[in-house]
Amino acid sequence: MPTSELNEFSRRSRWASGQPIGALMARALANPNLISLAAGFVDPETLPIELVQLATQALLSSPASARASLQYGTTHGSLKLRRLLKQRLESRDRQTLQINDDQLVLTAGSNELLHLTCDALCDEGDIILSAAPTYLVFLGVMDSIGAVAQGVESDDEGICPDALDRALTRLESDGDLGKVRGVYLVSYFDNPGGRMAGQTRREKLWDVTARWSERMGRPLILLEDAAYRDLRFEGPDVPSLLQFDPTASRTVYLGTFSKSFSPGIRVGWGLLPHELSAAVIDLKTNTDFGSPHFSQQLIAHVLEQEWDIPHTERLCAGYRRKRDAMLAALERHFADQPGVAWRVPAGGLYVWLTLPAEMETGLGSPLWEHALSEGVIYVPGEFCHPAHGTPKSRHGMRLSYGVTTVEQIDAGIAMLARAVAQVGST
Amino acid sequence: MPTSELNEFSRRSRWASGQPIGALMARALANPNLISLAAGFVDPETLPIELVQLATQALLSSPASARASLQYGTTHGSLKLRRLLKQRLESRDRQTLQINDDQLVLTAGSNELLHLTCDALCDEGDIILSAAPTYLVFLGVMDSIGAVAQGVESDDEGICPDALDRALTRLESDGDLGKVRGVYLVSYFDNPGGRMAGQTRREKLWDVTARWSERMGRPLILLEDAAYRDLRFEGPDVPSLLQFDPTASRTVYLGTFSKSFSPGIRVGWGLLPHELSAAVIDLKTNTDFGSPHFSQQLIAHVLEQEWDIPHTERLCAGYRRKRDAMLAALERHFADQPGVAWRVPAGGLYVWLTLPAEMETGLGSPLWEHALSEGVIYVPGEFCHPAHGTPKSRHGMRLSYGVTTVEQIDAGIAMLARAVAQVGST
Repeated sequence: MPTSELNEFSRRSRWASGQPIGALMARALANPNLISLAAGFVDPETLPIELVQLATQALLSSPASARASLQYGTTHGSLKLRRLLKQRLESRDRQTLQINDDQLVLTAGSNELLHLTCDALCDEGDIILSAAPTYLVFLGVMDSIGAVAQGVESDDEGICPDALDRALTRLESDGDLGKVRGVYLVSYFDNPGGRMAGQTRREKLWDVTARWSERMGRPLILLEDAAYRDLRFEGPDVPSLLQFDPTASRTVYLGTFSKSFSPGIRVGWGLLPHELSAAVIDLKTNTDFGSPHFSQQLIAHVLEQEWDIPHTERLCAGYRRKRDAMLAALERHFADQPGVAWRVPAGGLYVWLTLPAEMETGLGSPLWEHALSEGVIYVPGEFCHPAHGTPKSRHGMRLSYGVTTVEQIDAGIAMLARAVAQVGST
Repeated sequence: MPTSELNEFSRRSRWASGQPIGALMARALANPNLISLAAGFVDPETLPIELVQLATQALLSSPASARASLQYGTTHGSLKLRRLLKQRLESRDRQTLQINDDQLVLTAGSNELLHLTCDALCDEGDIILSAAPTYLVFLGVMDSIGAVAQGVESDDEGICPDALDRALTRLESDGDLGKVRGVYLVSYFDNPGGRMAGQTRREKLWDVTARWSERMGRPLILLEDAAYRDLRFEGPDVPSLLQFDPTASRTVYLGTFSKSFSPGIRVGWGLLPHELSAAVIDLKTNTDFGSPHFSQQLIAHVLEQEWDIPHTERLCAGYRRKRDAMLAALERHFADQPGVAWRVPAGGLYVWLTLPAEMETGLGSPLWEHALSEGVIYVPGEFCHPAHGTPKSRHGMRLSYGVTTVEQIDAGIAMLARAVAQVGST
């Protein structure tokens, strides 16, 4: 039997193939000597071992709560956890949400919910606008459903509202406005850029999209991915886009405990417009009819006891120290290099570094190969650039201080500097 | 803004809508006084509270294993667990599998893997053949991806090989053979019918599909859903279809710990043909890039310690007792009723009951309404019938003894008998 014929799989599986993140992660996991400034993993030293011990003991100590945790939950996920999340969000955003419990959905990591939401919103060829660069998994999600991520000009606060307005105008004049399903933004210390959208930026984005919603005669959905909101090192917290939309009429807010607690427990969550949440639940019913209930009950107990609050403080202190180490190393090695620049993130796990325009960073580029022989890897910036909209920049890179120690960060940046010098001298 | 416009979601979300299982589960969870012979939940009394306590303590007792469990895993899932599963399968099937670790994939429940596999195999309009009736979630999966589940005539052992051959011949003469992507079967104590495919049946199914693979010039995939294999009450275990296919060249074998251990921990797994596993991993990379690692490590510890073996024995003893209670109650109430029949399952969680042909069982039917007023619900058999292929039978029902006590089973069957009598007398 010709096994080559096995390649005849679905269009979706072809669209989904060739995503770089899996290969990068496998490479980082496979070679323990390589310093990975690529992996978005969290710091293993900060994983909440004791809290998970205490929470599982508490969950399993009474037969009733033990049985509830070990049984199926609903497709929406634990009501207890969803209500706790609503309270938390209200207190952070300093407002009362006028929502129904059904608008809150729990998933195994927030990426699952990002995928379900995009899949509910987009048919093949439909468009979601995003910053450029943006979260590379979002780009993979859009590819895998046959939809189009279109990059919009961005600055230190993410998508520029004026550029968004211009992009929508252009789409309208091209007759493509009907395909636009939403705008995706990582609004707190974004992946990959470490950018934070301030209050004025939020107001302007809301206003532009409100105007276009009126013009389109339907809500232009804003997908606010708040994965890194808890990892804030300095400056005040800024209320989410729900400040303008307490019923979540056109806002999707995505959160996760993977970064602030544990990716192995893997609980993500989101608040969605009512009818969109129903569409997402329809899809999820057919995918897995609910994510692991035990993980959800565990997180609910942690929140109820407020154990996450001091834990997050410790986390932020640790990541701030490592961010500072990375910034100091960059300063040491790159301060006098023309055309090299980086953004100082006020939170999150990433520093975005740009090199001189002629110095490409992609897989197989001279810089990549030199860095690999030095013993360090990074995420090539072009992986984070949507294929449509703004032109792809090929001389940036995402550096993470998440999983590495201060010593590895120092060594890794030194290796990178040597690789840049080698490429520059040829 | 006209919120009705929010209904304009993707075709996938429309295909996914209107699945009955979610509503049934919600109904069962919402009214604690209703006796649910519908829910496929597992018996709460048998959930492995102590084993989960011991396993979490063990996992969290050393910093290294604790950190590994609480960190991201790979998209394939824990290698340790995958290798343990391979060993188990080899010992059960009494053969050596010639497979690569990458062919083993872990998911959050085996339904996720069923969904990913169907999504990798099928484009819109593609066909997978199945028994009729079959697992209703499989039908939902196929609907939600725009593909077609086509029922094949079935008997006490599931799909009839001759009928499968005839169905494929008809598809060929209709010019539709190119759309056929596989054959799905729940081969051990199936949901909903409690049917078990014996060795001769397996040989014949393998032969028929081997012949058609030759004719089609590509492998006709066999999806063997072994969700209930561990819940065997009597008779010998029969080796899986991998007995004919030790490289898994065209067999997908799906397993789960939801039924035999805990649905709240929710670990499913599968062994797939090599290139199909790569396609599934591509899809999964974009969905969630890996299921909860903590759950996987927990199950790995349980298997390593072989704690699951005595646990499964206790489980089977409990379910056998409840099956016997249901059979005795059916005997008591229905033995003398013409046109009423049921199948005795040798394992699993379900009894399939058929009523006289004129007595429809669907939602809103007189029988359904009478049963509901009596205080009992069941899964209407038509939900388990593919919309294509064999004609839909509307006078069957799936009865589960999974979650109910012996007392509730007795009371529930008595209520059902009264409902049948009421409908029969009108």
